[in-house]
Amino acid sequence: MAVIVTGGSGFVAATLIPGLLERGHSVLALDNCSRGSFDYLETYTADPNLRTALVDLADLAAYRKSIEEHAGRWAIDTIWHLAANSDIPAGVSDARVDLKDTFMTTFNTLQVMRDYGIAKINFASSSAIYGDLGDTVLTESVGPLLPISNYGAMKLASEAVISAAAESFAERALIFRFPNVVGAPATHGVLRDFILRLKDEPSRLTVLGNGTQQKSYLHVSDLVEAMLMLDATCSAGIDIFNVGPTDKGITVRDIAEITVGQVSPGAEISYGSEGRGWVGDVPKFFYSIDKLKAKGWSPKLSSREAILRAVSEIATELLPS
Amino acid sequence: MAVIVTGGSGFVAATLIPGLLERGHSVLALDNCSRGSFDYLETYTADPNLRTALVDLADLAAYRKSIEEHAGRWAIDTIWHLAANSDIPAGVSDARVDLKDTFMTTFNTLQVMRDYGIAKINFASSSAIYGDLGDTVLTESVGPLLPISNYGAMKLASEAVISAAAESFAERALIFRFPNVVGAPATHGVLRDFILRLKDEPSRLTVLGNGTQQKSYLHVSDLVEAMLMLDATCSAGIDIFNVGPTDKGITVRDIAEITVGQVSPGAEISYGSEGRGWVGDVPKFFYSIDKLKAKGWSPKLSSREAILRAVSEIATELLPS
Repeated sequence: MAVIVTGGSGFVAATLIPGLLERGHSVLALDNCSRGSFDYLETYTADPNLRTALVDLADLAAYRKSIEEHAGRWAIDTIWHLAANSDIPAGVSDARVDLKDTFMTTFNTLQVMRDYGIAKINFASSSAIYGDLGDTVLTESVGPLLPISNYGAMKLASEAVISAAAESFAERALIFRFPNVVGAPATHGVLRDFILRLKDEPSRLTVLGNGTQQKSYLHVSDLVEAMLMLDATCSAGIDIFNVGPTDKGITVRDIAEITVGQVSPGAEISYGSEGRGWVGDVPKFFYSIDKLKAKGWSPKLSSREAILRAVSEIATELLPS
Repeated sequence: MAVIVTGGSGFVAATLIPGLLERGHSVLALDNCSRGSFDYLETYTADPNLRTALVDLADLAAYRKSIEEHAGRWAIDTIWHLAANSDIPAGVSDARVDLKDTFMTTFNTLQVMRDYGIAKINFASSSAIYGDLGDTVLTESVGPLLPISNYGAMKLASEAVISAAAESFAERALIFRFPNVVGAPATHGVLRDFILRLKDEPSRLTVLGNGTQQKSYLHVSDLVEAMLMLDATCSAGIDIFNVGPTDKGITVRDIAEITVGQVSPGAEISYGSEGRGWVGDVPKFFYSIDKLKAKGWSPKLSSREAILRAVSEIATELLPS
């Protein structure tokens, strides 16, 4: 089967696309490459089952054109919709950022599915749709859903329009609610920020917030394995899955100490005074992944193990050896 | 205090605006008048506390201009955001209808609030955000939220961006989840449709769906009273309230019989075979309004009483006497 991957030059796609190719799919990777790079896929440059195209998916005419030019005779069966803004504070400063890159890319993806008779969508949603529910264990059915960032809002808005499409013309819609996902190549995120700050100033790491924020982290290899399993086994209709580790997460303080220990031992860590890093930062959340476990999947790595492995991978990527 | 009412020429505004004026507010009513009419407010034409302006609120520059031209020295404190597409099947056929009229009007309302320092938003959300949850009693915290129409999706998307704004710059956000609301002037809805069909063909009423759909109806007078009470008593932050009757609703069959009985006694009623009227129609829903009752409010009319009164009002409006 042929599939489209939006956000095809991004961090998650760099692991997902090899997995899709290995399973015999043809892949058309679409992206505006604002943060990622198709270079992440350079191992597959000669693979006739991979095509890439630079396109702004918020522009419906350009989206359509890229499919018509590049899909050729491939019969596209599924769109893996990963494209989104990944700079949450930027979207808080200017709501148009997430309107365009997080929401309109979804809206246009659905228009394209309808226009070209593409049956299925697999959507990268986010824990950010839950907002700040404190100590509540987040199952897929908790509410009310009050996101505190425009990123979270536009991910929830995306879920909503996908749901309406599933009632109307889409044959199957899978919504994966990602936790914090870590690994290489790091295009954004706390580990990349910490490592680049230490590269710049090896003796000191300044942390936004007081370090008590506690969140679930999943390694991208676990995430992709879960998504491919769900894609292969779920039947028609709409379904939502939290994807995450089974533990209660790890604090920012622990992450800072692990990073300093691996990258710049002895560096002094200084913390801010606030319980959250920025407006729109959810200070802690605890996922239930019972629904995913009932499908027979468990993550290989805990939050701490995912961080340990990802720090090592990103340091290898970003620092001179 | 001065307020803006978007959708100011619509059905709900025709009752809300007089209520606001009676309470001493100045009102700037904005609308594209696609279905409603500022004529509904003609009793207040000479009132210096009411101003009206024809504007497409999906056009941000036009929205800004209408405020700058018409608000004058009024210090706007609150936007009552009622503007939305009200033709649900039209939005299922073409998702751009609800994108523009239901969602972008909300997105722009928030931009305007930020630009002009307007502190509060009171938003007309909908039972449609819940999707089809069958026999589940709908409290404000049930999930998952899987709307089945683009109208419901864009109302949920609107809630989401309002929530993010409440975290960032909006001082207070009240989200009212409307049930089916009835009364005059009827700009849309099942009662208007039935009465116009009977006007056209007095001997026969054709009903979409098999008539078993069962929904909660609220008379617009009760709705407006609840909203004005909440506006006057709620403190800062974000809060969500289901607004509806205390009963379990009334079937489409009952509504058809009441309408025929009042408007065209003896007309034959024919039903379709489907359990819902159209794609995107939620066949039944049951509201919990415990949260609203805890604020001391109860509706004066049941679903059946609301229908009886509204049929009489709309017949008076639409039929020759």
